[in-house]
Parts: sequence; C-alpha cells; structure tokens
Amino acid sequence: MPDISRLRRFIQAMTRLADQNPSEARWLAEGEALLAELIAHDDWLPEALAEPGPTYRQYLLHCDPLERFSVVSFVWGIGQRTPVHNHKVWGLVGMLRGAEVSVTMHPEPGRPMREGQVDHLSPGQVVGVGSGEEDVHWVENAIPDRPSISIHVYGGNIGAIERHTFDPATSAKKRFVSGYTNTVVPNLWDRSMEMTAGA
Amino acid sequence: MPDISRLRRFIQAMTRLADQNPSEARWLAEGEALLAELIAHDDWLPEALAEPGPTYRQYLLHCDPLERFSVVSFVWGIGQRTPVHNHKVWGLVGMLRGAEVSVTMHPEPGRPMREGQVDHLSPGQVVGVGSGEEDVHWVENAIPDRPSISIHVYGGNIGAIERHTFDPATSAKKRFVSGYTNTVVPNLWDRSMEMTAGA
Ligand SMILES: [Fe+3]
Ligand SMILES: [Fe+3]
Ligand SMILES: [Mg+2]
Repeated sequence: MPDISRLRRFIQAMTRLADQNPSEARWLAEGEALLAELIAHDDWLPEALAEPGPTYRQYLLHCDPLERFSVVSFVWGIGQRTPVHNHKVWGLVGMLRGAEVSVTMHPEPGRPMREGQVDHLSPGQVVGVGSGEEDVHWVENAIPDRPSISIHVYGGNIGAIERHTFDPATSAKKRFVSGYTNTVVPNLWDRSMEMTAGA
Repeated sequence: MPDISRLRRFIQAMTRLADQNPSEARWLAEGEALLAELIAHDDWLPEALAEPGPTYRQYLLHCDPLERFSVVSFVWGIGQRTPVHNHKVWGLVGMLRGAEVSVTMHPEPGRPMREGQVDHLSPGQVVGVGSGEEDVHWVENAIPDRPSISIHVYGGNIGAIERHTFDPATSAKKRFVSGYTNTVVPNLWDRSMEMTAGA
C-alpha cells in the first residue's frame, strides 16, 4: 500500500514556501530540493495515478487552493509523446520511474520548427525551467517496452492555463488548455490509520 | 452535471480567511456567511459524495494543506445517527438537503449522560459551535424516508484529530479518530471546460 504521507509532506512544504511569496529563482531552487526528496523513493504514488492510457496521462495530484502551484503525475505509455507545447509558468520535472526525453523546439514563423536541446531524464533526476526561458518542447517515453512516470510541479494551475501547442512543420501555434485526466484526486488527509498505529 | 465551481470559490475564500490568522470568533462569523452562500444552492455536490451507505458517511471535500480547516459532506441514510462525540475544534454545520437533529449531551461521571439543547436544521440553515463550548452531541437524520446531507467545516483536519466518543449510559469516554469514508476527493481544478466555453 503506497505511503501517501511523502506526498502530503511535500505539499505542505511547498505550501509553506508559497506563503513566503518567493521569487521564481527561489521557487525553482527550493522546489527542486523538495521534489528531489519526494522522488528519491518510488513507494508513494497511488496505483490509479500511475496507470497508462491510450494517450499520455496528466493526473492532478494536488492544486494549491490559491492556484500558486500544481503537482501532476505524467504517465507515458509505450511510444507515447506530447505535442509540441509551451507552459507560460515555471516548471520542475522529477523522474520517478522509467525515463523520458525532452526536445526543445524553436518556432521559425511559416517554416518547420528547429530542434534545440535534447534532455534525457533518469529516475531521481530533477530539472527546472523558468517562465522566461524558451519553454517550447515535446516529451516522450524513452523506454521502448514499459511506461515511464515523471512528477511535474508548475507555478500555477497548469491544467487551467491558456497556452499553446505548435505544428512542427509550420511553427503555427494553436490555443490549448490541457485540463487533467482525473476527476478525483487522492485524499491525503485521512491519518486515522497512522494515528491509531502510533497510539 | 454538478457545478463544482461553487465549492472551489468557497474553498478559496476560506483559504484567504485562514491566511489572515483569524480569531475563532472571526472564523465562525465569516465562515458562517461563506457556508450559507455555498449551501444556498444544491447543485454542486458530486453524486459520489452524496451517496448514503450502511452507516452515516463522512466524505472529505477539502482539507486545507496546512490543516487549518476541513470541509466534509455528512450523509445520513434513513434512521442513521452518530455516536455521542466531541470535536475539540470550532465547527460550522450547514444543512444542504433533508433535515437533521442534533442533541447536546452532558457527561455525568459514572452515570447516564444528561440531554441538553435539541437543534433542528432545515436546508439553508447554518449553525456554529466554538471549540470552548460544550460540544458533546449526537446527530441523526430527521427525515424518516430519505437521506439527509449537511456540509460541515471544522477548525482543523477533523478526520485526523484525536477526540472521544461517549457511552450515554455511563458517560464513559473512548479515544476516537474518525478518518474519512473516501480515499479520493473531487478534482476542483480542471477548468478546461469552463475556459474553452468562455473563449
Ligand atoms: Fe511540458
Ligand atoms: Fe459532531
Ligand atoms: Mg499565508
């Protein structure tokens, strides 16, 4: 049975950070350390939020009630990838299980997009991207024969932010609000079992 | 389809209130006004969180990440009632559907408990109880032939607070951590439909 308390502690620490109105640099630095701690163990993600589907899954794990940050489990099935897209807010990606490749893409108005930096992520690794940086990319599962899972943190309610996808052949962009795959999120707050055990 | 945005707005307003470190009097006064607004309409509670069960249900709708307050849907099936219990934190009860009766009980060490105030709640009504007040009571469905639902707000993570149940015949108390009925809570944050509709 997954130990959801790791996720609860992560969310509480991120909330305390949010309450200090941190600069983006602080969000990225302190958020990276907290996310690295969370994904150092792969024993806490509920099975329902690790399930691959017909396309990649974006399971909301937690959204800050004031929408200052959100935490999402991305599950890549075999051969799955995102469209080319942007974010508009800072982001942190921590690899939990498997591996992924991210390819930065540069729009060239009216022409094919140009490929930029290619990043490979292995379990335990965390990368951060600022909101001011070139943040157009696509991501795919880098494992040929099983699903991969990364935990993302964004500087807003990422499923509700109006952003864009891009056509790699023409650099044309299209309005995009991603939403989330799941209509229910885990209940992190039932500590009755822990408390009874500790009595 | 329920309009979950009412619950989202309520939780955001309660979070902003929590961020002001209010006195208990302010929590009760401003929380009462916000809860009255929430329960003035019965069009937002997801069906899964309105389902009666073999005993009364305590569905967590939201817990503040810093555990300063929690919001719970109590569903009373026909003939169902709580044990005699206390709370240890302030509470607000807003009647959403049906009706309930709350009976205050006074412990008399070694003897049967004495019945106190009897409160009847109808839809739209909200009552508050301070943490310092005598807060031992039992609650039951006041409708003989269908379920009743009230929305409760507490000054903490009520499912994780160590409190007590009482034996009405002897006033003896017993340690009690209620937990919650549900392992998943509603995702209030997928606004992709609303945003697409508004474009
Ligand atoms: Fe991305
Ligand atoms: Fe009660
Ligand atoms: Mg604050």
